[in-house]
Amino acid sequence: MFDNSNELSPWDRDHFFHPATYAGAHARGEMPTRVMARGDGVYITDTSGRTSLDAFAGLFCVNVGYGRQKIAEAIAKQAKELAYYHAYIGNGTEAPIRLSKMIIDRAPRGMSRVYFGLSGSDANETNIKLTWYYNNVLGRPEKKKIISRWRGYHGSSVMTGSLTGLELYHNAFDLPRAPILHTEAPYYFRRADRTVGEEQFAQECADKLEDMILAEGPDTVAAFIGEPILGAGGIVPPPTGYWKKVQSVLEKYDILLIADEVITGFGRLGTMFGSEHYGIRPDLITISKGLTSAYAPLSGVIVSDKIWQVLVQGSDQLGMIGHGWTCSAHPICAAAGIANLELIDEMGLIANARDTGAYLRAALTEVLAGRRNVGEVRGDGLMAAVEFVEDKDDRAFFDPTKKVGQQVAAALLERGVIGRALPQGDILGLAPPLCLTRGEADIIIENTASAVDSVFVN
Amino acid sequence: MFDNSNELSPWDRDHFFHPATYAGAHARGEMPTRVMARGDGVYITDTSGRTSLDAFAGLFCVNVGYGRQKIAEAIAKQAKELAYYHAYIGNGTEAPIRLSKMIIDRAPRGMSRVYFGLSGSDANETNIKLTWYYNNVLGRPEKKKIISRWRGYHGSSVMTGSLTGLELYHNAFDLPRAPILHTEAPYYFRRADRTVGEEQFAQECADKLEDMILAEGPDTVAAFIGEPILGAGGIVPPPTGYWKKVQSVLEKYDILLIADEVITGFGRLGTMFGSEHYGIRPDLITISKGLTSAYAPLSGVIVSDKIWQVLVQGSDQLGMIGHGWTCSAHPICAAAGIANLELIDEMGLIANARDTGAYLRAALTEVLAGRRNVGEVRGDGLMAAVEFVEDKDDRAFFDPTKKVGQQVAAALLERGVIGRALPQGDILGLAPPLCLTRGEADIIIENTASAVDSVFVN
Ligand SMILES: Cc1ncc(COP(=O)(O)O)c(C=O)c1O
Ligand SMILES: Cc1ncc(COP(=O)(O)O)c(C=O)c1O
Repeated sequence: MFDNSNELSPWDRDHFFHPATYAGAHARGEMPTRVMARGDGVYITDTSGRTSLDAFAGLFCVNVGYGRQKIAEAIAKQAKELAYYHAYIGNGTEAPIRLSKMIIDRAPRGMSRVYFGLSGSDANETNIKLTWYYNNVLGRPEKKKIISRWRGYHGSSVMTGSLTGLELYHNAFDLPRAPILHTEAPYYFRRADRTVGEEQFAQECADKLEDMILAEGPDTVAAFIGEPILGAGGIVPPPTGYWKKVQSVLEKYDILLIADEVITGFGRLGTMFGSEHYGIRPDLITISKGLTSAYAPLSGVIVSDKIWQVLVQGSDQLGMIGHGWTCSAHPICAAAGIANLELIDEMGLIANARDTGAYLRAALTEVLAGRRNVGEVRGDGLMAAVEFVEDKDDRAFFDPTKKVGQQVAAALLERGVIGRALPQGDILGLAPPLCLTRGEADIIIENTASAVDSVFVN
Repeated sequence: MFDNSNELSPWDRDHFFHPATYAGAHARGEMPTRVMARGDGVYITDTSGRTSLDAFAGLFCVNVGYGRQKIAEAIAKQAKELAYYHAYIGNGTEAPIRLSKMIIDRAPRGMSRVYFGLSGSDANETNIKLTWYYNNVLGRPEKKKIISRWRGYHGSSVMTGSLTGLELYHNAFDLPRAPILHTEAPYYFRRADRTVGEEQFAQECADKLEDMILAEGPDTVAAFIGEPILGAGGIVPPPTGYWKKVQSVLEKYDILLIADEVITGFGRLGTMFGSEHYGIRPDLITISKGLTSAYAPLSGVIVSDKIWQVLVQGSDQLGMIGHGWTCSAHPICAAAGIANLELIDEMGLIANARDTGAYLRAALTEVLAGRRNVGEVRGDGLMAAVEFVEDKDDRAFFDPTKKVGQQVAAALLERGVIGRALPQGDILGLAPPLCLTRGEADIIIENTASAVDSVFVN
């Protein structure tokens, strides 16, 4: 669809190993490729001059939209003044210190420290290591298993790829690895027994979690990790009552709760954190994408005071905590984070995510209503998903080899809007920049309806 | 030693969780802290106005030196034009494509693709996953163990922390984890039998590696990973003949060789890669620090054509390779990489690393000669280490609780020069920016001698 005539094309095919690639097809030039050149708000333009409305904000991450000169200038200024110094032991630079204060000011109650990394994956690596350290310091060396959920996405390193509960990220990589376990995805639309009510389904999820904990032995289970709303796994909001029920199970067995807010942190659900939104009280919070709107690679673990006190005890007994990345707390990335959080406030993006998100979801539901192949329109805040089925009434899913979700995403792209076919199931995901206007929402809605109709001619 | 009066100090102590921290001591304000504000060449200045000669280049990484406006401008320009678009599947931006070409042009023979990450740790995660994928595609599902070395440093995530062979990075984190094994560190100075010659010691290392492979079963061993010269583990050049002997063992059993060139890549040893320098023929190369001089977080895996062909076969059979980071191939970081590699060429830094490195090591050896507590002065290129002992002739090591290495580093810092006490043993590490002049080398040498004498008053 996009031209391959660009002078960069041979270098791209011969030397650049893309993430999530079809290595062979890409190298042989059999796949569409696209090189982006500039952006403005929700719009992104490639080197051939073609502009699209990016209704997926990069990868759920460009929350403030493209082309924000305030962040570009903060990056430029920091690069000019001091591009790098490390933060090991007692060293550092100003920007990450200021940013840590800003994050704690915005974080849910009880949070006290921020450890900075570069990616959501590495922040979850930090979470795993802190969880194990915590239980070692507390003299519970057996309490080490971590329960994640099928359809969770938590990263692509060996251990975070194991936390991830999507087949595509396990296959041929020998994942998941011990001591990671997966429990039921809280995916009401895909429940086995369709007669079950939503709250009852949530209870079943909590019961299955409790059964797993009891079967494994509560003294061996250290933590539970979950996204407030499932993201890459389908953009699936939790069924009513889910988090309350899950939390009471975790509390009963003294199991830590890690909220992976890589997507939901800093406004996507119309609240600063997804934890607030759903009444979650986490011990550790993973942040990344929304922290800088991906203007620079930055992630973090927000550590509760409860955990921090044990880390203090540990380091007093054991010495230096042997964990760090060379570019932890990189000043340029932190400067981008500061400007980004300021911009979110200044532009009122959180309220807009709530309002425009509600508008987008309602209008999308309405426009797609009654279509046989639209099984569900769902979402929360400025995240929405449309799930396609053979037949709405039977809830019969398509043969995955038909790649129906990808066909819809491709048809939408032809119409000038970028959505994303989520990796498992036929699901079109939408997660536009939080600056989306109603007019831009209308463009997404209209073209989604048209794309759906073009694929399902019936 | 440095003032804690800065207005940032309470935020630093209350909210910023530093890498490699003493959590308790730092939070209570019992430790020196230092906030850096600007830099120029080999010099770095903190917010209180105090300047030091950074003879460790941050963390072995600021190879071009501080304050290079060419890189700052490249970052600023890219931030202004387009701060982010993802590189998943066939997407991307110009800078990483150009950089992948520049890297392959500079890489050892047989290398064909670059996968970009953010940290040396995540690049080694990628190496582990690619190694497993490779053997799965080749139908050898049992061939999965990875052999690393004691005293290697390969990262801080769960699996790369396992590759790392330093106790400080294992303790209380339940590392190393299967299927990672460690073989003998090629550390001639610390050999058990002091009568053994260097080449014979190298042979013993290779023999021990072969014994381990045979004991485990060659069909279960997938890869060997090593830094061309041990870095954080002591700045220890390989004993004569080491790599040749190790490679012939690996070839015999069809075991991949991963060269972790995070420190040595792009000039530190006076050659573009450490692999060239020591005649290593790797299948995968890890790069990070020197790629951007840490002006922006970027890492990479350079993939040989041999591995790439199997990835092509795999993705043709299995579909998308499920591996990626949201900020893989970030355009700002890639733009920093391009400017940095250009600067290395323009400033002739590789030749300077070779020449000034040789000068620094020779002069340091000379000035410290005959001191009872200096066991060895060693290094290669622009990396040097001074190892301290109770007594040179007996090679009696100090009680680690005395922290002699840290005392020397502290005394050196008081004299205005930043060196680093390496984490295991009493070893002062030096790895200055590659732009170091002879005059600046003299400052390091003089102050090192004075610091050593101040600690060992005898
Ligand atoms: C919820 C969640 N956690 C973690 C990650 C991993 O982040 P990264 O790609 O930066 O490693 C992602 C990325 O999509 C995510 O959505
Ligand atoms: C040889 C080597 N490999 C890997 C790493 C890990 O890199 P990072 O700290 O960027 O994760 C380091 C860091 O010091 C290193 O020296």
